[in-house]
Amino acid sequence: MGHRAAIVGAGHTRFGALDVGPRALVREAVDEAFRSVDLGVDRAAVGEGFLATLGFGGWQIGNASAVLAEEAGLAGVPTTRVENACASGGTALRTAVRAVESGGADLVLVAGLEKMTDVPSARRRYWLGVSGDTEWERSAGLTFAGVYGLIASRYVADHPEGRDALEEVAVKNHENGALNPKAQFQKRVTREAVRAAPRVADPLGLYDCCPVSDGAAALLIASADTARRYTDTPVFVDGLGAGSDFLAVQERADLTRFGATRWAADEAFHSAGVDRSEISFLEVHDCFTIAELLALEDLGFAADGGAARMTLDGETRRDGRLPVNPDGGLKAKGHPIGATGVSQAYEVFLQLRGAAGARQLSGASRALSHNVGGAGATATVTIYSVG
Amino acid sequence: MGHRAAIVGAGHTRFGALDVGPRALVREAVDEAFRSVDLGVDRAAVGEGFLATLGFGGWQIGNASAVLAEEAGLAGVPTTRVENACASGGTALRTAVRAVESGGADLVLVAGLEKMTDVPSARRRYWLGVSGDTEWERSAGLTFAGVYGLIASRYVADHPEGRDALEEVAVKNHENGALNPKAQFQKRVTREAVRAAPRVADPLGLYDCCPVSDGAAALLIASADTARRYTDTPVFVDGLGAGSDFLAVQERADLTRFGATRWAADEAFHSAGVDRSEISFLEVHDCFTIAELLALEDLGFAADGGAARMTLDGETRRDGRLPVNPDGGLKAKGHPIGATGVSQAYEVFLQLRGAAGARQLSGASRALSHNVGGAGATATVTIYSVG
Repeated sequence: MGHRAAIVGAGHTRFGALDVGPRALVREAVDEAFRSVDLGVDRAAVGEGFLATLGFGGWQIGNASAVLAEEAGLAGVPTTRVENACASGGTALRTAVRAVESGGADLVLVAGLEKMTDVPSARRRYWLGVSGDTEWERSAGLTFAGVYGLIASRYVADHPEGRDALEEVAVKNHENGALNPKAQFQKRVTREAVRAAPRVADPLGLYDCCPVSDGAAALLIASADTARRYTDTPVFVDGLGAGSDFLAVQERADLTRFGATRWAADEAFHSAGVDRSEISFLEVHDCFTIAELLALEDLGFAADGGAARMTLDGETRRDGRLPVNPDGGLKAKGHPIGATGVSQAYEVFLQLRGAAGARQLSGASRALSHNVGGAGATATVTIYSVG
Repeated sequence: MGHRAAIVGAGHTRFGALDVGPRALVREAVDEAFRSVDLGVDRAAVGEGFLATLGFGGWQIGNASAVLAEEAGLAGVPTTRVENACASGGTALRTAVRAVESGGADLVLVAGLEKMTDVPSARRRYWLGVSGDTEWERSAGLTFAGVYGLIASRYVADHPEGRDALEEVAVKNHENGALNPKAQFQKRVTREAVRAAPRVADPLGLYDCCPVSDGAAALLIASADTARRYTDTPVFVDGLGAGSDFLAVQERADLTRFGATRWAADEAFHSAGVDRSEISFLEVHDCFTIAELLALEDLGFAADGGAARMTLDGETRRDGRLPVNPDGGLKAKGHPIGATGVSQAYEVFLQLRGAAGARQLSGASRALSHNVGGAGATATVTIYSVG
């Protein structure tokens, strides 16, 4: 099948605990996206904007999309906030590609933002909890770390090598993050340090959990027909998928399978018309280390339970058969909620154009990104190519 | 130009202070939408869902779209939350039509929901404020009634007949609401009662302000090609528009012109390829009575300042030249934030199919709906026809 749309520009702030306000974060990422367009772009060509954000902690919870038009200098241009919790960025990207495909706009701006570190830790727990199930989980005090701890317990009980694999995910993603100048954590960790870290929700310890982050990322999406006006090396979006599942994990048939990811992957591969074997590398949603193992299985790159062995065998390392999270993942790069899915596409944009610097993969021509909302109630999958 | 998509089913709960939870509200509106499909519909035909909600007061602020799949019985189907404050419903409708036009789905479910009355009044002020500008307005204590009071003061200073016209908007919309069995207020009010009511933000009194409401509404949107599988009288969406503006009103050139509405109207009329003279009636966003006057002018149905005279002359009454808000508008029908834009399309669906009961307009063949986010930072306009 043909290309659906193309990324022609991308920008990204540093992720971390930043002493910068949310508007300035959006502006920085958007400005970098405009500057990155090889052949230049007139801002007036942008016909539509999408903002992915949870409005974390109270900053402009409602109507935040208008800020995107303001900060991007796009007076009057229609803007829409898209929110599917931690999958907001991937969902905004999908909605933007759809907008281009519908003929509604030839060039669309997508931005993702979160400013999380302004919020005191007690309120932060509330704000992280709002994307989990409200009725059964949040009101009972179950946090996301708690939910993923339950999932990891089940996985490790079924697959004992899972415990070592969780550690290896942390080590690998920190190793990758150490090469990413925009990552929140640019330091390696050892298996011993991961094992010795304080427990958060057993078997998950401190190094199994992504941090609380500030940051923004932005993309310029052009129609497949017009993309070469902006660059000789557009990164095409070939496949899109999304899916949903019960909010409360108690309603699901299986704790260690995310149905939303499976649904999204099927749709994305079907629409792209490519096989899993053609994918060079993955950006997956590793909010906790266990989530990376689940992703490999749910996306169809490992059999159920097989992700642990694949990880321990080094296949997902930067020099492995199928590199996973070359930017450090949510684990080391950081996870400013609304920005994450957009940030994944930014990494794909750099890698497929050979612009990823010290962490550049060799020979990458197709990639997949995977973004999960909450504990798997929503998910998106996007498949890209360059050429 | 051709039809862009079609509404083939619609459902609506009663609006008001309801002793029903948010999930049950969604389910009721969605079930009614499915039941309303004349020739029947298989739920498995729905390929996508959009939920418009502000997550008012804390109910499932994040990832709420997954609830739509659960309550509609659409396991696995991709769902997306679209939020542009009070324009969330119109924005979700626009996004859904785009999804259909992109070829991504042939049948899409759109629902709008808010459950506002559970929230104590002090927190309610916060939750209403979150959709206004955070940095300049909310943090200074300026409420929406305050912002619209400032706008109304300016309007009345420029156009002295505006004060009487504001009263007439309240009287007319209550008169229409009295005929709508799903309206929150089904009672008429007199000009004298409106004038004698307690002031909220002068010149706006109690009857100039829409109420705090619970409620949900739902639509089934089919591609224009497949619509007649579901009904012999689809309501086609012919034109779509949206626009944005500065969040803070202090940044705008003119207090009494909403640039976002003007941008949206231009785009909607251009895409529909029809003239204003062809529109039979309007559903406009009258969160305060002043907003109905601004809407008539911003949408191009009255010259600047001319909406007051048009209203006082009775042109916008149910039996006037251009009926406005035959369902009672936000003013009398109620304004459960995320539901409002969807509810407007529901009224259009009934009126254009001759199914609006006691409030049926005669000879309506084309309609326009207009949904505003916050104090005009976002807006959508939709143009419909039947046939």
